[in-house]
Amino acid sequence: MEPIRVAVLGAGGLGQAARRLIGLKQELRLVAICDSQGFAASTEGLSCEHVDFSIPCDEPLKAVAEWEGAIDAVLVTLPNMPNEFIPTVIEQFVRRRPQVVLVDVLKRTAAVSQMLRLDPLMKETQSVALTGCGATPGLLTAAAVLAAQSFIRVERVDIWWGVGIANWAAHKATIREDIAHMPGYSVERAKTMTEQDVAALLEKTGGVMELHHMEHADDILLERAGVVDSQDQVEVGGVMDTRHSNKPVSTTMTLTGITLEGKRSSHRFILGDETTMAANVIGPALGYLKRGCWLKARGLFGVFGCTDVLPMVVR
Amino acid sequence: MEPIRVAVLGAGGLGQAARRLIGLKQELRLVAICDSQGFAASTEGLSCEHVDFSIPCDEPLKAVAEWEGAIDAVLVTLPNMPNEFIPTVIEQFVRRRPQVVLVDVLKRTAAVSQMLRLDPLMKETQSVALTGCGATPGLLTAAAVLAAQSFIRVERVDIWWGVGIANWAAHKATIREDIAHMPGYSVERAKTMTEQDVAALLEKTGGVMELHHMEHADDILLERAGVVDSQDQVEVGGVMDTRHSNKPVSTTMTLTGITLEGKRSSHRFILGDETTMAANVIGPALGYLKRGCWLKARGLFGVFGCTDVLPMVVR
Repeated sequence: MEPIRVAVLGAGGLGQAARRLIGLKQELRLVAICDSQGFAASTEGLSCEHVDFSIPCDEPLKAVAEWEGAIDAVLVTLPNMPNEFIPTVIEQFVRRRPQVVLVDVLKRTAAVSQMLRLDPLMKETQSVALTGCGATPGLLTAAAVLAAQSFIRVERVDIWWGVGIANWAAHKATIREDIAHMPGYSVERAKTMTEQDVAALLEKTGGVMELHHMEHADDILLERAGVVDSQDQVEVGGVMDTRHSNKPVSTTMTLTGITLEGKRSSHRFILGDETTMAANVIGPALGYLKRGCWLKARGLFGVFGCTDVLPMVVR
Repeated sequence: MEPIRVAVLGAGGLGQAARRLIGLKQELRLVAICDSQGFAASTEGLSCEHVDFSIPCDEPLKAVAEWEGAIDAVLVTLPNMPNEFIPTVIEQFVRRRPQVVLVDVLKRTAAVSQMLRLDPLMKETQSVALTGCGATPGLLTAAAVLAAQSFIRVERVDIWWGVGIANWAAHKATIREDIAHMPGYSVERAKTMTEQDVAALLEKTGGVMELHHMEHADDILLERAGVVDSQDQVEVGGVMDTRHSNKPVSTTMTLTGITLEGKRSSHRFILGDETTMAANVIGPALGYLKRGCWLKARGLFGVFGCTDVLPMVVR
């Protein structure tokens, strides 16, 4: 079987992890990658060890979309600030280059909602978009859909994540997106913060951020899948340590519901503490990317959430 | 949307749980059910509280297949002894009545292998079969496919289940199938045991059975999905208490693998102790049944394992 020819948009911490992981997979070939400064592309496949962004250009995203080589699938690991940035990038990409599979690892409800509205465009362009396909939403949200199967009614889904990053500089964009979830902060405010501002904020808390009631798209994706009746039943929060690579808490999805026999119980999905945020985001994203190619090959176009390619919830 | 018209083959413990659960779902309508003695059917829908097997017949399975009313999907909850019984029932059913969705909750590797070989027949009859769609294989196997996404190599999948049943008489067939996994026993020997034999066996162990190295189809389904290279990497065992409804151990799927950074780690999926075996088997089976109808409506015919409608594993 020919490998899937993948383009990666974004060369930050997640983009670099994607590049390394794609390099280990015989079923995938990295053919294009871009950052804000330029892009690299090769029909033969790029080195996944070292990328030379040898083609500087003003509009790297446009350049990838207009590149003459074949691209089967696109993984989007750009920072998503403002909220509409990635949905807009994906919309522009597919208009320039139809018949493609696009996967994002978006986190915010507002951003995923905007992606879901691209369904007619994806169908029109014979494309497939998979949205919210990282860790949360993504892996943990999918686990909630599985867990829901045992219950006649789901009361709550609680996602509590732990992330430990020894060098926060490598994941600037991710940390900035999380700062945007803190009380008193917004996507706009986080975006305008200088690196000194971020460092000063982290200094106050010893490098640790604890976040509650995060606006995460797990809510809309689980409502859409029929796991919950209302987005309020989904709660996402977590603890990020920006100075130590050990996770401050174990990342856990807990789904609580009522059984056929009328009892309350909880299923849990717990990630191993040694697995990194990058592995738990990019691994699932590539699994969804392959499923997206499967859907496209069968003529099933449109936008799918991470919860839409699983056993279904029966109402 | 019109409800999915469901037939349930088998009216033992699992068949009864299926009937109760279907009764709670507005998206499903129970139109036919049979046991070894007779069958009941109604295009308007049967009562899910009490079924009167008012139509006695020699061949209830054939009678359901030849019933004149419409059936969209069939859930098979018959005891599977011998190993080829359910695959044969499904084969005969679809030959008599093509264009249908069939879901089984088979456990043994030999039985699921036989189901997978029906793929050409299912395609030919424009049907969809979903195999191994109970708890294990099923819910826990699907969780293993999700868990695998975070790792570059999976070393082991360990499934350790706990089942507590206060009255074993209601789940005779399930217990008999588990006895068949005990050292020195076989499907044939378990089938020929009288109820007194089973009671005597359970008496010796205080009603508790601990099983290791069970021949469970989680192995073939995870190999097929690319989660493991070899079926030996999958281990299924558990403890059944036939005298108390409390689970003797928490049912847990543990997947151990190597991360992108070269570390060994384990993700775990743990079922709530208050959820019963019946809920963890029949709930997922109905979720797969709905997905099967989705596949069939899109012209995607064939046999799918419980691991085949999820994010894919990239090799």
